[in-house]
Amino acid sequence: MSDNLTIAVDGMGGDAGPEVVIAGAAISLERTPDLKFLIYGNESQIAPELAKHPKLAEACELIHTDVAVAMDDKPSQALRRGRRSSSMWLAIAAVKDGSAQAAISAGNTGALMAMAKVNLKTMTGIERPAIAAIWPTVRGESVVLDVGATIGVDAEMLVEFAVMGEAMARTIFGLERPTVGLLNIGVEEVKGLDDVKKAGQILREANLPIEYYGFVEGDDIGRGAVDVVVTEGFSGNIALKTAEGTAKQIGEYLRAAMSRTLMARIGYLLARGAFTVLREKMDPRTMNGGVFLGLNGIVVKSHGGTDGFGFASAIDLAVDMARNELVARIARDLGRYHAQREPAREPDKKVNVS
Amino acid sequence: MSDNLTIAVDGMGGDAGPEVVIAGAAISLERTPDLKFLIYGNESQIAPELAKHPKLAEACELIHTDVAVAMDDKPSQALRRGRRSSSMWLAIAAVKDGSAQAAISAGNTGALMAMAKVNLKTMTGIERPAIAAIWPTVRGESVVLDVGATIGVDAEMLVEFAVMGEAMARTIFGLERPTVGLLNIGVEEVKGLDDVKKAGQILREANLPIEYYGFVEGDDIGRGAVDVVVTEGFSGNIALKTAEGTAKQIGEYLRAAMSRTLMARIGYLLARGAFTVLREKMDPRTMNGGVFLGLNGIVVKSHGGTDGFGFASAIDLAVDMARNELVARIARDLGRYHAQREPAREPDKKVNVS
Repeated sequence: MSDNLTIAVDGMGGDAGPEVVIAGAAISLERTPDLKFLIYGNESQIAPELAKHPKLAEACELIHTDVAVAMDDKPSQALRRGRRSSSMWLAIAAVKDGSAQAAISAGNTGALMAMAKVNLKTMTGIERPAIAAIWPTVRGESVVLDVGATIGVDAEMLVEFAVMGEAMARTIFGLERPTVGLLNIGVEEVKGLDDVKKAGQILREANLPIEYYGFVEGDDIGRGAVDVVVTEGFSGNIALKTAEGTAKQIGEYLRAAMSRTLMARIGYLLARGAFTVLREKMDPRTMNGGVFLGLNGIVVKSHGGTDGFGFASAIDLAVDMARNELVARIARDLGRYHAQREPAREPDKKVNVS
Repeated sequence: MSDNLTIAVDGMGGDAGPEVVIAGAAISLERTPDLKFLIYGNESQIAPELAKHPKLAEACELIHTDVAVAMDDKPSQALRRGRRSSSMWLAIAAVKDGSAQAAISAGNTGALMAMAKVNLKTMTGIERPAIAAIWPTVRGESVVLDVGATIGVDAEMLVEFAVMGEAMARTIFGLERPTVGLLNIGVEEVKGLDDVKKAGQILREANLPIEYYGFVEGDDIGRGAVDVVVTEGFSGNIALKTAEGTAKQIGEYLRAAMSRTLMARIGYLLARGAFTVLREKMDPRTMNGGVFLGLNGIVVKSHGGTDGFGFASAIDLAVDMARNELVARIARDLGRYHAQREPAREPDKKVNVS
C-alpha cells in the first residue's frame, strides 16, 4: 500500500484554533515528510499561520470556508448550521470522497461525532460508533473504548467494541493477539451488570479469534493487565478523566515536595534528567487523540485544549491507522465475527425445525 | 455527647484476618485512649494476637464465634451461613442493640452491605444505601459516593446521596456549607444521562440547604473542585479504582526514573525527605475506609488487603463519625429534605383540584 497519505484537517477546531492546528501539522510533517494535508477553514486566519511554516504550506492545500463549529455548539446546532459548509464537515467529506485517508479535528466532540455519523455512516454490523483512547500503562500502552460516545450500551455493542478495539490494538501496537478485558467492578451480585456479564459470556463462548482475558477493574488499566479495555462511554470517560486528574494531582504534590527544603531543591537539580523522563512519561500530549471506531472512514478527535505538539501526536495516530488500513481490518473482523455468530445459531434453528 | 465510644470489630475480616485487625485496633487505641472495643471472631486465633497488645486486651471484650464470612462468599451465601452467628453479623448486631456506636469489617463488601441492610435497615426516606469514600485532593479531601453499592440509580436516589454525602462532609471536614457536584461527562446530548440531569435540576431548584455546584467531570475530583462528588456505584467504583491504579503507576514511573542514573540516585538521596512527604500523601492506607450511608447505624468497610496502619485509619474514621453523630445528622437532613420537597409539590395539587 502507498504511503502517500493525505490528512484532512479542520483548521478551525480547538480552543486556540488555527495557530495550534497549523503548528501541529508542521511538526507532524517533519516526522512524516511525504504527508499531504487538506486544510479547511478561514483563509484570512489560516494563511498567516501557514506563512510561518513554508514546508507545510507547500505540502498542503487550503480550502476556504467561513463557517466554523463553535466549541459549545450542540451537535444538532452544529449540523443545522455547519452541514456541507463548516470546516469540520468538509474535512470529514474529504475522507468520504477519498481525497483524504483520515480527518482530524480538535473541535467539539459531540458535533464531530454527529457529523461523522451523518456523513460517513456506521459500518455494516455496527450499531453505535465508539471513541477509543490510547492509555499509557506500566507495561506500555493499551486501547480503552468507549471513552464518551455512547452511554448504556448492551452486550452486543460491548462485543462490537471488543472486536473494533482488538483490531486497533493489532494495528497500532503491532500485536498478533492482543488481550481484551471488560471493565467491571469487584462487587458481586450487584444489579445492572447484566450486559457486562452477557458480553463476557459471548466473548468467552462465541469462539471469536479474540484473546478474551475476563473482567478487569479500574486499577487494572494502568497496570496494563490487558491490551484492550472495553466499557460503555459514561464510565470510560470518567475513568479517562479521573486518570488525567490524578496524574495532574500527583504532579502538583511532586512539585510541592521538591521545593519544600533546600536539600530537596538540590536533589531535584541533580535528578533533573530523571524528572524530565518522568514528565515525558506523564505528558498527556504524547497520548492525544480519540479515534472514532465503527465508521466508514478514519476520524480522530484531538483534545480541544492541546498545543501544537499534542495536535501533532493526534495527526501521527491518524497517519498510523490510515497507513495500516484500520477501517478495512475492522470491516474484515466484523464480517468474520458476524459470520461466526450466525452459523453458531444455525443448528438451534434446524433442531427447532426438525 | 460522651466520648466513651465502643467500636464493634469483625475480627475475622480481611485477607490477613485477626493479625491485621488486632494490630489496627491497637494503633487506633494509642490515638484515642478512651476507646472500647467489642471484637468478634475465633478466640483461638484472636487471643494470641491480643496477647501482643496488652493495652488493647484491657480495652476490649473478645466474643467467640466459629463462623466467619469468606472473602469470596456471595452476599446470599454469607447471609445463609452467617446470619446471627458470623463475626461480621455480630459486629453489626452490636451497633443495632446499642452496645457499640459503629461496626467495622475488612471482610467482603457485598456480604457486609447485605448483612448491614438486613440487620440495621435503611433510614426512612432512603431507597438504597451508598458507600462513601474519602478522596485526597489538591485542596485537601472530598467525599465521593457511591463507590460500589448501587448501579443505575435514579435521580431521586442521586439527590439522597447528595444529602447524605453533604452531611458526612460537614461531619468529618467540619465545613459549614460543603459544595456538592454531580459526576458527569462533558459530551453534550448523549443518551442515558437523564437521571443525572434530573438530579441536577432537583438540586438546583428544590431549595435544599445544599451548596450545589453543578456537574463535575472525572478530573475535577482530584482538583478538589467540590467537597462532595455524587455518582452511581458503577462509575464511582471505576473512578476510585482508576485513581488508585494511576497513583501506583506514577509511583512506579518515579521509582524507575530515580534509579536510572547515578546523578538521579544521589538526587533522590538528598531529596529523601521530600519523597517521604510525597509517599505519605500518596499512601492509600491513610484514606482507608468506605462508609455505609443510609443505614440506621454506622458501618465502615476497610480495604481487605490493608495492614494494621490502614485498618487503624478506618477505625479512626468510624470513631470520628460516631463521635459527631453522623446518623442523627443525616436523619435530620433527610427529614428536612423530604419536608421541603413535599410542600413544594403541594401547590400544584391544589391548582389541579380547583
